Amino acid sequence: MSSDSSNADILLKNPVSFLDNSNPAGDIAISSRIRLARNISGHAFPSTASEEDSAKVCEEISAAAGETAVFAHRGALSFTSSEMSKLDRKILLERRLASKEFFTKIPGRRLLVCPQEACSLMINEEDQIRLQVIRPGMQLHQVWKEIDQLDDELGKHLNFAFDNQLGYLTSCPTNVGTGMRASVMLHLPALVLSGQIDQTVNGISKLNMAVRGIFGEGSEHLGALFQISNQSTLGESETHIIDQLEQLIKQLINCEKHARRELMEKKQNFLLDHIGRAYGLLKYSYVLSEKEALNALSGLRLGVYLELFKNLDIRKVNELLIELSPAHLRKKAGIELNDRECDEFRASYCREKLRQTS
Amino acid sequence: MSSDSSNADILLKNPVSFLDNSNPAGDIAISSRIRLARNISGHAFPSTASEEDSAKVCEEISAAAGETAVFAHRGALSFTSSEMSKLDRKILLERRLASKEFFTKIPGRRLLVCPQEACSLMINEEDQIRLQVIRPGMQLHQVWKEIDQLDDELGKHLNFAFDNQLGYLTSCPTNVGTGMRASVMLHLPALVLSGQIDQTVNGISKLNMAVRGIFGEGSEHLGALFQISNQSTLGESETHIIDQLEQLIKQLINCEKHARRELMEKKQNFLLDHIGRAYGLLKYSYVLSEKEALNALSGLRLGVYLELFKNLDIRKVNELLIELSPAHLRKKAGIELNDRECDEFRASYCREKLRQTS
Repeated sequence: MSSDSSNADILLKNPVSFLDNSNPAGDIAISSRIRLARNISGHAFPSTASEEDSAKVCEEISAAAGETAVFAHRGALSFTSSEMSKLDRKILLERRLASKEFFTKIPGRRLLVCPQEACSLMINEEDQIRLQVIRPGMQLHQVWKEIDQLDDELGKHLNFAFDNQLGYLTSCPTNVGTGMRASVMLHLPALVLSGQIDQTVNGISKLNMAVRGIFGEGSEHLGALFQISNQSTLGESETHIIDQLEQLIKQLINCEKHARRELMEKKQNFLLDHIGRAYGLLKYSYVLSEKEALNALSGLRLGVYLELFKNLDIRKVNELLIELSPAHLRKKAGIELNDRECDEFRASYCREKLRQTS
Repeated sequence: MSSDSSNADILLKNPVSFLDNSNPAGDIAISSRIRLARNISGHAFPSTASEEDSAKVCEEISAAAGETAVFAHRGALSFTSSEMSKLDRKILLERRLASKEFFTKIPGRRLLVCPQEACSLMINEEDQIRLQVIRPGMQLHQVWKEIDQLDDELGKHLNFAFDNQLGYLTSCPTNVGTGMRASVMLHLPALVLSGQIDQTVNGISKLNMAVRGIFGEGSEHLGALFQISNQSTLGESETHIIDQLEQLIKQLINCEKHARRELMEKKQNFLLDHIGRAYGLLKYSYVLSEKEALNALSGLRLGVYLELFKNLDIRKVNELLIELSPAHLRKKAGIELNDRECDEFRASYCREKLRQTS
């Protein structure tokens, strides 16, 4: 397992795993993700653990991970929070491998990432273990199978804090029980464009599921990207929760498909205008903010699935979704960029990428 | 002189004379225009004249115009306000051949238009005669020469109301004296973009000159198009007024040129972004309002003069300035269009026109 400071650079050579194309229902369901929260018996939770204890836990978990096929792989990477540059930290955030919480000052924090980035493990974040598996498209059950197996492998070497009544014990009570959060990221541009999204979101909230924008609360409509996840972790089995979530996602996918058809049939020029303007912006602007880019990429992505473009496939659009993020751009530029310069570089990168398209 | 109801269709076959390309300072000065207000001795002004009197005046002036080379030409056109469709009236407004005032109900109104539209004559508008000459670019003195000669020709057959003390007598006191309003339409995108325009406009107002947006008061920044004209008509000779106006215009042209250079040198990406977004909008939108089109054409026009485009010349952009106007679009469509449909047709027309450009 490599551990040097250029690990973030290695990541950048991979396409982002969860943005792979040609995956189940990938036009609307961008990615499926499950994370499990675990802690080890006899150790305090990270927020109250001593520095010494945290270091010990970190080594113990790292050793256990080293016994799993996934993290023992020679291509797996290890990141130590305290040793990383600010920019590299943001790279991990943008690739959804680490959380903001992970980069606060508590010592003994480490992130393990398997090759292709589908599996990752944060040590001493809110819980001692935050295990994640993420896959493109709609495949929650496949993701569950993978993470469940990995969890079992780790459990052979670690004594998880578990209560027969409650289930897995976690730092925050909202995770007690399964310790599982399953989520699917959906692209719902037609529901946004047709003004149906707020009603849809309200409906989801009543089903004990959570809806968040791509950047969390308050960014609900940005890029028409929505994360739908389970709220409860207590009193239900993992597969039951996943079944329920999957059912909901399938309904949402059908709603989005219906909204797309409706727009194409009844408001075609309105729809084409939205997509055309998005394309024009990405192709010809010289200063492009992250928000503008995300919203325009949303339009572009819809346009690609409606087969409106030449020489432009979904892979390229999905790549741009991550490549136009601030840290990825700064890394690509190789020089320091202030916010304005970053917006200029974003526009220039995007123009170049769309140059041969029409 | 032809006089049938399809005269507006004949106009549409001509390019708009004042939007000709390759003219003096044509990158910034779009057109030069002078109009003279005249009335005939012994007749009431149009607003108070009887129907009978108006008809008589109309015939008298038409006959005199028929004696001039310009309006006697077999290609000259005659329009009678009461006989025109609403759409044809708007065509005349958009081509700047008639005023809104001209199409109110007062009888005995007629418009004469010479071939190529450089000269026109409204009969019984606010004054009995409103003679206009308009030419592309910065050529006020040439325009003055033409209109002065035409005025002399008419004066041989008509007894103009003239007071030795005051000069030409007009319906509104603000026109008494020379009865002349000279104006230049300027395209000042760099002064708008760099935020200098308001200061510039304030300065002009102090010089006893008037500044108006393309659609009059309240539309000052639309399309970055500005009409600069003389305020006073009393106590100064026509050539003196024109000299003063020309001097001011030359200063404004220099200011605009300076602002363009400054933007290119110091805020290049800001400038290119403005132009690129304008181009993207015109090339890819499917619903385009008149305002959006005008503002985007302004950016495009600037871009053409900065030589940023392939296969796109100023002639095409100038044509679009008139072709994307509502009445011209509706005429071109050949079917009734509501406002929304007109915006859709505008976008479609524009996309087609810019298809081979890059």
